Amino acid sequence: MKTLFTGGVKSGKSRLAEAYILEQAGGRKPYYLATTEFIDDEMRKRIDAHQQRRQDAFITIEEPVKLLAALQQCPGPVLVECISMWLNNQLFHGVSVAGILEELEAVMQLPCSMVLVHNEVGLGIIPDNRLARQYVDLSGKAAQLIAAHCERVFFCTAGLKLQMK
Amino acid sequence: MKTLFTGGVKSGKSRLAEAYILEQAGGRKPYYLATTEFIDDEMRKRIDAHQQRRQDAFITIEEPVKLLAALQQCPGPVLVECISMWLNNQLFHGVSVAGILEELEAVMQLPCSMVLVHNEVGLGIIPDNRLARQYVDLSGKAAQLIAAHCERVFFCTAGLKLQMK
Amino acid sequence: MKTLFTGGVKSGKSRLAEAYILEQAGGRKPYYLATTEFIDDEMRKRIDAHQQRRQDAFITIEEPVKLLAALQQCPGPVLVECISMWLNNQLFHGVSVAGILEELEAVMQLPCSMVLVHNEVGLGIIPDNRLARQYVDLSGKAAQLIAAHCERVFFCTAGLKLQMK
Repeated sequence: MKTLFTGGVKSGKSRLAEAYILEQAGGRKPYYLATTEFIDDEMRKRIDAHQQRRQDAFITIEEPVKLLAALQQCPGPVLVECISMWLNNQLFHGVSVAGILEELEAVMQLPCSMVLVHNEVGLGIIPDNRLARQYVDLSGKAAQLIAAHCERVFFCTAGLKLQMK
Repeated sequence: MKTLFTGGVKSGKSRLAEAYILEQAGGRKPYYLATTEFIDDEMRKRIDAHQQRRQDAFITIEEPVKLLAALQQCPGPVLVECISMWLNNQLFHGVSVAGILEELEAVMQLPCSMVLVHNEVGLGIIPDNRLARQYVDLSGKAAQLIAAHCERVFFCTAGLKLQMK
Repeated sequence: MKTLFTGGVKSGKSRLAEAYILEQAGGRKPYYLATTEFIDDEMRKRIDAHQQRRQDAFITIEEPVKLLAALQQCPGPVLVECISMWLNNQLFHGVSVAGILEELEAVMQLPCSMVLVHNEVGLGIIPDNRLARQYVDLSGKAAQLIAAHCERVFFCTAGLKLQMK
């Protein structure tokens, strides 16, 4: 069983995904795969806010880059938080778009139960910055690839989730 | 009864919210709380277009900053147009994010019937301007807070509304 | 029968619209009205990717500007790909917003069966570039005008479509 939560900044997608996997896990302690790598003060505050919510409900794994390898070691269920940061890290480390999507395809073939969080960035004005445009493209392609493998997809806004699939 | 209309620029959210509150009011004349403060030519055109639509159907109150105080005087039903502008005004006047969200929480505790309009800004590329990023964060937090207190939440696009709650 | 597919960059809207019109056409070969005018390398790659998908399933017409005239010659069913590019071309050629919306209104009055693809750009932070702001406004107005004439409207994200109407 694979599930995608997509939505904008502060749409509540992370909180909704956490509540969802905890409910699905039915008492088992789920894994939490944190993909954040580059941490400034602003990011640290976001992470701290996320961690306060998680408390002892999850087993946390931190892996910013080698997502497939980390998930291969993980029996699941696992919350991947988040795909957008992982895409960003992969680009930073010089991985090609084709390479990223290939790894993502392999991730989605894994048998373990998975909830993935993704940040929707393609509904604003198309950025005049070429790198940002490439990121928007990659982000949308990744979301499509993930959603195609998921049994359920939720679009989040204002702390609410809407089932798309 | 509290209702949120969220959506992008020119999504039809204001028009849909106006039609909705007029239908809910069942013949009573609703209040219209306008939060716009800073007015340039472009903004003036938008306001004029909004006012032409409102005509004599509403009792208009203009209050860009003291939203709680204004709504405490208002028996309702009231259309708050819009939360996004009020957030912007509060930030301009140096109110802290915590202070803004505290006032908003108190607003949502008021007993009067309320329809709130909010501009969704978090579904595009994350801006590289720090102030814009802080605004996007605050906007999302405000939408979540409001939606949690609302019986109904609508997401608007292309002049259509989709019920999220 | 008129149908609108709206959604962000790489939301799958073009692919979903193509599948939809092919299914609706029931064996007849639909027209494909391509509105792209300004082509750089990046755009060429996008067009090539689109064309690969289309293969021999459509009769392609290329018309970046005179949309009404082109569609008047077209018995339909026709896929208009895409409105956003046409709006952009019209603005580039100095057509006024009123003139653009007037032509669009006439397009929507045509009797032929039509599927229109539109790029939602109004759900991000409001751009500080005045031209971009005007484009966002026009894009939203165009989407509302089109949707009002459509029997069905779909909002697309992550390769999935959600029926709004």
